[in-house]
Amino acid sequence: MADLDTFLAEVRREVDQMLDLRIPNADVEPTILHEAIRWSVFAGGKRIRPALVCAVGRAFGAESAALSQTAAAIEMIHTYSLIHDDLPAMDDDDLRRGQLTCHKKFGEATAILAGDVLQTLAFKVIADDDGLSPELRIRIISLIADASGTPWGMVAGQQLDLSGEGRRLSVGELENVHNQKTGALIAAAACSGAMIGGATDDEISSVRRFATDLGLLFQVTDDLLDVTQETETLGKTAGKDAVSKKATYPGLYGVEGTRELAAKLLADACLALDLLDRDTALLSEIADAIAGRNR
Amino acid sequence: MADLDTFLAEVRREVDQMLDLRIPNADVEPTILHEAIRWSVFAGGKRIRPALVCAVGRAFGAESAALSQTAAAIEMIHTYSLIHDDLPAMDDDDLRRGQLTCHKKFGEATAILAGDVLQTLAFKVIADDDGLSPELRIRIISLIADASGTPWGMVAGQQLDLSGEGRRLSVGELENVHNQKTGALIAAAACSGAMIGGATDDEISSVRRFATDLGLLFQVTDDLLDVTQETETLGKTAGKDAVSKKATYPGLYGVEGTRELAAKLLADACLALDLLDRDTALLSEIADAIAGRNR
Repeated sequence: MADLDTFLAEVRREVDQMLDLRIPNADVEPTILHEAIRWSVFAGGKRIRPALVCAVGRAFGAESAALSQTAAAIEMIHTYSLIHDDLPAMDDDDLRRGQLTCHKKFGEATAILAGDVLQTLAFKVIADDDGLSPELRIRIISLIADASGTPWGMVAGQQLDLSGEGRRLSVGELENVHNQKTGALIAAAACSGAMIGGATDDEISSVRRFATDLGLLFQVTDDLLDVTQETETLGKTAGKDAVSKKATYPGLYGVEGTRELAAKLLADACLALDLLDRDTALLSEIADAIAGRNR
Repeated sequence: MADLDTFLAEVRREVDQMLDLRIPNADVEPTILHEAIRWSVFAGGKRIRPALVCAVGRAFGAESAALSQTAAAIEMIHTYSLIHDDLPAMDDDDLRRGQLTCHKKFGEATAILAGDVLQTLAFKVIADDDGLSPELRIRIISLIADASGTPWGMVAGQQLDLSGEGRRLSVGELENVHNQKTGALIAAAACSGAMIGGATDDEISSVRRFATDLGLLFQVTDDLLDVTQETETLGKTAGKDAVSKKATYPGLYGVEGTRELAAKLLADACLALDLLDRDTALLSEIADAIAGRNR
């Protein structure tokens, strides 16, 4: 775990530096917009997606410098989705990572715009990354657009999730929601690292399988935390799923059944890693850490 | 004008066909999301930005087939911005182009997501446009991201506009708002057509000057229409600017002074065209049509 902690701290430093470089300073007009973006981007996110870009990229021999812009861009996409998900018309959340959500702090209009423009910046960062060939930048933009868009990506998943509130989803429907809403971007993070490292199509497929299990594992542990943790530990409002009548894994399988599901997903993710003839120790540790996280 | 009408009808047919091809059908899950996107994209927009991509592109000798995906992508960006601008937290509009706005028809959450994902699709369409070289796709993505983003683009302009409501903006501030909010994307449309046609940097500069005047002209006539036309002719709520205490050109210069400003902008735009040693008759006609529009 010491290696993992060192690695995560290093990724955080690199990606935060890149985000700081690519997001206009808070004293640039319109200042409220840039303050709002920075409020949400530097709110203490766990940087799991950047860590995956970098850990997979390194497993395939990519240099850090070739990975950091893509890592920052994917974190921008993730942050835009959180800002919009928290809006009153969506999940209506007041707290995120222990601080006020963007719209609570800066107003709804600015939060909408901050999310909008973070998405724009994400694509711009990749388009301008002259450490990667134009062909590779195009491939990564297309990959991330699919993963964050519709009909198989993040926004489609968010729409399915909203449309499913208040009714009992089947296991298949719930898995579909999560694969799209959370899993797709996590998979894109891992796959973009593999692409930058020059992985073959077969290798990218195995990476995708690993990351898809990991994404579902992340959601399953998220649902578990919502029912088992206090708001204070979690840094966001606990027990919200029950209040909003959202379908959850504990709701379908109970807490114990959900723990068993998490263990199975972790095992499957590690099996997919074994297919890669690479040093994937760091990736296994990331999977273990996600399975064992407490916030 | 017969030539212009034929050209505009042709652009509309081509761009609508491309939009229909690239936006998931309304029977694809999540259906409400795709219905909402199509509701706004096919609401009878004037397709001015696609027309500029194509008219400038043709002036530089580009084939229609090389222009239509970029034209569709820029229309997607424009439509996403309209959907979000109409939201209750922003301009709170019920009508757009004579029909219910997206959030009035499909609810606020879906309207937010429809706008979000139209932006994603726009970048995806350009990234996947294999009729253009990867280098050119990257340049166009970067151009459009700058024009629609911050600190010089559309979202920054929208934020400045919101922050300026209820107080009297100076002429410089108002022009700044409009150059960013409307002008930047119009300029990007024209410049992307020039890039696809292989224009030199100097030529692209002249195109940018033309399109910037055109963008301001568009906004000036928009403000004029808001005070001089009825809601029915306009297809959106008339007189809204006065109600929201927005700074407008008629508010600053009066109706007659604003008409003079429009005439000056039209003349300047045509001067910029003269710098190009190209057949720009179609572009002059577009500028004339914008100056003389009644909705």
